[in-house]
Amino acid sequence: MFQINDNYQKLPGSYLFSTIAKKVAAFTAANPDKTIIRLGIGDVTQPLAPAILAAMHKAVDEMGCAETFHGYAPDLGYDFLRRAIAENDYRARGCDIEEDEIFVSDGAKSDSANIQEIFAAESRIAVCDPVYPVYVDSNAMAGRTGTYDKETERWSNVIYMPCTAENGFVPEFPEETPDLIYLCLPNNPTGTTFTKSKLQEWVDYANRVGAVILYDGAYEAYISEPDVAHSIYECSGAKTCAIELKSFSKNAGFTGVRLGYAVVPKELKCGDVSLRNMWARRHGTKFNGAPYIVQRAGEAVYSREGKAQLKEQVAYYMKNAAAIKEGLKKSGYTVFGGVNAPYIWLKTPSGTTSWEFFDRLLENANVVGTPGAGFGPSGEGYFRLTAFGSYENTLAALERIQKM
Amino acid sequence: MFQINDNYQKLPGSYLFSTIAKKVAAFTAANPDKTIIRLGIGDVTQPLAPAILAAMHKAVDEMGCAETFHGYAPDLGYDFLRRAIAENDYRARGCDIEEDEIFVSDGAKSDSANIQEIFAAESRIAVCDPVYPVYVDSNAMAGRTGTYDKETERWSNVIYMPCTAENGFVPEFPEETPDLIYLCLPNNPTGTTFTKSKLQEWVDYANRVGAVILYDGAYEAYISEPDVAHSIYECSGAKTCAIELKSFSKNAGFTGVRLGYAVVPKELKCGDVSLRNMWARRHGTKFNGAPYIVQRAGEAVYSREGKAQLKEQVAYYMKNAAAIKEGLKKSGYTVFGGVNAPYIWLKTPSGTTSWEFFDRLLENANVVGTPGAGFGPSGEGYFRLTAFGSYENTLAALERIQKM
Repeated sequence: MFQINDNYQKLPGSYLFSTIAKKVAAFTAANPDKTIIRLGIGDVTQPLAPAILAAMHKAVDEMGCAETFHGYAPDLGYDFLRRAIAENDYRARGCDIEEDEIFVSDGAKSDSANIQEIFAAESRIAVCDPVYPVYVDSNAMAGRTGTYDKETERWSNVIYMPCTAENGFVPEFPEETPDLIYLCLPNNPTGTTFTKSKLQEWVDYANRVGAVILYDGAYEAYISEPDVAHSIYECSGAKTCAIELKSFSKNAGFTGVRLGYAVVPKELKCGDVSLRNMWARRHGTKFNGAPYIVQRAGEAVYSREGKAQLKEQVAYYMKNAAAIKEGLKKSGYTVFGGVNAPYIWLKTPSGTTSWEFFDRLLENANVVGTPGAGFGPSGEGYFRLTAFGSYENTLAALERIQKM
Repeated sequence: MFQINDNYQKLPGSYLFSTIAKKVAAFTAANPDKTIIRLGIGDVTQPLAPAILAAMHKAVDEMGCAETFHGYAPDLGYDFLRRAIAENDYRARGCDIEEDEIFVSDGAKSDSANIQEIFAAESRIAVCDPVYPVYVDSNAMAGRTGTYDKETERWSNVIYMPCTAENGFVPEFPEETPDLIYLCLPNNPTGTTFTKSKLQEWVDYANRVGAVILYDGAYEAYISEPDVAHSIYECSGAKTCAIELKSFSKNAGFTGVRLGYAVVPKELKCGDVSLRNMWARRHGTKFNGAPYIVQRAGEAVYSREGKAQLKEQVAYYMKNAAAIKEGLKKSGYTVFGGVNAPYIWLKTPSGTTSWEFFDRLLENANVVGTPGAGFGPSGEGYFRLTAFGSYENTLAALERIQKM
């Protein structure tokens, strides 16, 4: 009789955003007259930029003609896209990353969930707490995280690195030595980030202890301060210890278009074994490329028009972030983030848990946010609002919260 | 010091089609004047049908307008697509499959590589030999296949079920009891299939021994004979023992568009645990949906115009299949397949290995095919040609082979 992967049975409850979706659906069903404003899940709302739309229409036309039709994509992604990425996201920033170290994917969620596969089953992972749930859950499914304790909301075999207001959301190096360190900078959910010199300390630490940093740079486009690195490869030595995961979801509004990439430098090795070659093998075996049309859309992100249009889009969302941050401050909330990231991380009012605050916000302001506890135990007492709504909705939500 | 997943080190050589691509690239570089005709990798060549192009243009326009923009897709896929699939691929054939048993994905390659994750690490897999390499390689990466013996070209812990001319390409039930049985019908690479009554025997066998059938139906659209099932759920009892994987690559030319789906029936359980719920959890954690534009393209496959246009496209490729089959027969080759599938499986001339035949075909006819040995040891002595070229190229390739 066949047996299942019983690691799945160890997973607590359901995925955070599925739980929120169910709560919102129940509220909406019970209150059909209320208009909900969603500042919960980090989904964008602005339409795709004109340069991207034009590229997609052109690519669709190409698919309609035998001479320009495109079937299976190259394993690592089309050259035109990998060239644009290498040039704009790396070489223009002084990072020496080559095209064949770049792997185009269907998004950073898949990559950040799949990357653990190339590491040993016994690998010890370290994560920031709070953290994007996918890092831990994907390792839990692979059996790396031990057992889950409902009381402490922690897995027995995960190294948690608390990030709270007390340490300025910059964790200490862990006491136990990890094999894999997940860092998301600028951070989801706290909306904070590290300075470049702090990041350099982490790169040095990883090289010293023999750990790999899995660096999720999905929010890089929102960096506004000069002393923040746009890629971990701006730090010296990063190519021997870091894999960088990037997304087009937040810089170009591709949450429903699906495109991302991973950088696995050739210098990153375990003994003689190149992790770049392992990831290439995984790509070739388990994935068949992002759609041609989507890769052309990605190329347009780097065109002159695309860059200008997306700069405006990012500015639009950051105007929302500033409005939420300032508005909540005025109302007496303690607020973090929103400067280098599209997330506002607020302290829930004293004595209110983050799920209680979620319910209160939903019921009284009809605004959906994300409870900090959903991102890990150190997220308790915090609450995430995103800047991805429309400006009008953002102001309306703010007003409702202020009146609450 | 971090360690890698050393199962990757056990994998022999590189992925079949990467090897072929390298050989072809080397030949082309050395012979820039020769025109290669590719009947190797199963990639389509006909442009997307007009109904699909129209749906994609419309969806791109929707993405350009805030009111109709689509961000993250629902975890399981959009209702409009799952409804069309349930109605057309299942209920119209008398199969009682519900929308929430259907999981939209980026293609059957990903699904067939990922599906093993929800089963126990100790699961014993059975595969047809020859076989699509992804089934075995994805299990090898997960550590289920034991060690690889270069002499026999077999993994120590895989149950191989030879499919050769001698057994009409229909395997016997294996002597050892498997936990997971991969069946691809109509078959890649042999181009042959089972009758519905034979498939029913396999369903009964799986239910009897407690195995799960992982049923890859990627070539279903090519079925021309009446006694062949279009879905495994046409067999009674299949919902308690089978997962069906489907692709839009071959029925609609989506190899570069990327769309597929998995069906995991609610009745499929291990004790109390629903595999459907496990797969839903995996989808929610590790995947973020197929692009909205692509899901709308998938919906158009089921429109009246789409169906008519794709029927013609399938007929076009099957005309190629018939031409290759008849032409090779006339030249004295022994040929299989090509009736319910777009693949021709020919016996290589006596004394010629399949890789020797590959080289001979490339050098003398400038035609690329796929050596049977690349699909497993029982593929030795066979060679695969696909019907996915243009009609003109197919006839030209045939002529070159006949002259060889």
